[in-house]
Order: sequence, then structure tokens, then C-alpha cells
Amino acid sequence: MIIGKVVGSVVSTRKCETLTGSKFMIVEPIPSLKVDSRLVAVDRVGAGIGEYVLVATGSAARVDVPNVPVDAAIVGIIDDGSNLE
Amino acid sequence: MIIGKVVGSVVSTRKCETLTGSKFMIVEPIPSLKVDSRLVAVDRVGAGIGEYVLVATGSAARVDVPNVPVDAAIVGIIDDGSNLE
Amino acid sequence: MIIGKVVGSVVSTRKCETLTGSKFMIVEPIPSLKVDSRLVAVDRVGAGIGEYVLVATGSAARVDVPNVPVDAAIVGIIDDGSNLE
Amino acid sequence: MIIGKVVGSVVSTRKCETLTGSKFMIVEPIPSLKVDSRLVAVDRVGAGIGEYVLVATGSAARVDVPNVPVDAAIVGIIDDGSNLE
Amino acid sequence: MIIGKVVGSVVSTRKCETLTGSKFMIVEPIPSLKVDSRLVAVDRVGAGIGEYVLVATGSAARVDVPNVPVDAAIVGIIDDGSNLE
Repeated sequence: MIIGKVVGSVVSTRKCETLTGSKFMIVEPIPSLKVDSRLVAVDRVGAGIGEYVLVATGSAARVDVPNVPVDAAIVGIIDDGSNLE
Repeated sequence: MIIGKVVGSVVSTRKCETLTGSKFMIVEPIPSLKVDSRLVAVDRVGAGIGEYVLVATGSAARVDVPNVPVDAAIVGIIDDGSNLE
Repeated sequence: MIIGKVVGSVVSTRKCETLTGSKFMIVEPIPSLKVDSRLVAVDRVGAGIGEYVLVATGSAARVDVPNVPVDAAIVGIIDDGSNLE
Repeated sequence: MIIGKVVGSVVSTRKCETLTGSKFMIVEPIPSLKVDSRLVAVDRVGAGIGEYVLVATGSAARVDVPNVPVDAAIVGIIDDGSNLE
Repeated sequence: MIIGKVVGSVVSTRKCETLTGSKFMIVEPIPSLKVDSRLVAVDRVGAGIGEYVLVATGSAARVDVPNVPVDAAIVGIIDDGSNLE
């Protein structure tokens, strides 16, 4: 899993039907992880822009929604005060 | 998931039978994601060359078609006007 | 799988319900693996900060807990005296 | 998925029993994909050295053969005349 | 899949119970694959240090042992005399 900051969101009107209602957020891994690339994750916990989140990737993103074509999900919000650097 | 631009397509006549009818598109991640490599994804939403799309990778690409050997699928088209940089 | 050192932990109060009780550790791969990036893994074996651990990624992280959205798990602690460099 | 050129093959006599009869090909992604590393894929379509092929990775490689331990499969041969650069 | 050389092994006494009896080998991909990082794989074929092996990653590593938390397995030994460079 990775920890990242929500830096944006993206809207797709024409999409697979099962994705209706999904919120797609752009997440940037925190620098200390040394993961260079950003990813797009669906939000499961009500995360907002600027928040630090925990992202699960791969089939882990679908354990609660097996029929939805997503490969990354925000599954937690990191508590304020965590030392992330 | 990644957001990318459809930059081409590719044709395979001799292929696994279950792939019959699949349209294979070459997708280039948008620069802001800092993902260097392009990938090939099957199209599920009628995407065209030049469009910005949402791509699901891994087993997510098969949630609607479990018996087809694909590991990446275009599952949405990004709305015009989205700020992707 | 990778071998890494537990270099920190992270707390998430607002998270998917199935993650309740999970302990999220930050793991840094040992240098000899030449894996640049750190990752976040749930702990299954009582690992502590500073210990060297074995991490399974992907769906392997869920074989014992199929309904929990995690993609990395600490599944073993490397014995003291192992030559890891 | 990736497109690559078959650049070699490899033989393994001592292997998991379920792999009996599998042909292991070394595939080099085409330069325009900017994927640096080569991979080993089992052949499902009768590909030969020098041909350009479509490779599915991960569990996609096992949709037709669920009990065989492979993570990459050649699932199509790219038509001659395709513009791959 | 990758081809690599077994360059070491690692011992974990405190581990998930289902891992009892597993032998964890450190595998270095052959240079011609241009895969920089080493990985840890469980041995399924009696591989020894110095041998060249075929490694399956991801859920492929569990097709014969679905309940064991591993994400990489040595599934074959490359025949002597193979041209691996």
C-alpha cells in the first residue's frame, strides 16, 4: 500500500456502467516512499483534496465491490500529526 | 488506475479465440502522472485516438469479461475541460 | 516477496471498517535488493520498528483475510544473524 | 498488455509438472512503449523468434489454464504492416 | 516471468503458520532482462544457490498452494547450456 496526498480529481461521464458514482482522485505518494509516479484511485472514505490517504492497489481495491473495474482505492485517511517525512 | 491519451491502435489477426472483437489501443499516461511507459489496453467504452481515458490494469480489466486474457482496459473517457496537467 | 526493515508506522482512524485493528508499518527494502521505493504493509506477525521482515505483496497479502483491502503484509521476521547485505 | 518482439526462448527440464509442454519465450517490449525490461512469457499462439506479439501479464496469463504457474502469456501476434514505432 | 540466478537464501523462524517448510531464495534477474531489482521467491523445484531458475510472480506463485502468502515462486530450473546472455 502507499501513503499519498490527494492532489486532484478527474471526471468521466462516459464510463463503464458499474463505475457510476465513483469519485476518481489523483494521489501523489509522499516523498519519503520514493515512489515517483502518481496514480488515480477511487475514494471509499470521503477523502478531500490535500488530505493524506492510504491507498490499496490491485485486486485489494475491489474486495468490497468485486464487479467494479478499479485497481486502486483510497481505504483510509492518515491521522493529522502523523510524521510522514 | 491511470489517465492517458490514446495514441494508436494495433491489430492482431492470429490471437487467442476469446480476444475476437477486442480493440487494442496504445495509451500514453499523461505527463503529470510521471509514469514513463505506455501500455496496450482493450477498449470498453468506444474511445478514439486522441481522447484522454481512464485505464484499469490487472484483474480489474476482466471484471466484466472474466475469460478474456487482458490485463488493461479503457473503462472511461475523461470529460473535456478537465485540467490534466 | 521482499525483505525490508520496518522504519515506521502510520495511524488511520477514518478507514474502511474491515481495516479495524490493522497495524500499518512502513517498510524499506534492504539495499541489496535494489528496490528503491518503500511500501506500507499490514503486520501479521508482531513485527516492531527496526526489525527485518519478509513482505508479501498483491493478493498474497489477503490469503488469510480475503475481505480486507490490503495489498502488502508482513508475513515473517528474518532471523537475527542472517546475512542481508 | 505490452507489444514486444520475441528475441529468444529458454528450456527448463526440471520444472513444476503443470508446466510440461509450455514454451517459454523471451520478449522485448517495442521501444516506443518505453518499457525497459524484457520478460519471459509462455506461448499460446505459436509465435516464433522475431515476431511481434501481444503479451498479457498477471492472472490474465492463466484465464485458459488456471492451474499453471505462469504470469505472462503471448496471446496474439501483431499483423505485419502495423506501425509499431 | 523472469529468469534469474539464485544468489542466497533467508531464514524466518517467526512467520505465518502456513509458511512452515517454505524455503525462501533470493533471486537476481539475469542482466539481459534489464530488471534491476532482486526478489525473494519460495522454491518449488529444489533449486540451489548458483542455479538459473524460472520465477513466477503474483498469484501465479500460489496456484498449487492457494492458502500460502507468497507472491513469487521458483517453478523451473533452466537447463545447462542455455544461452542466457
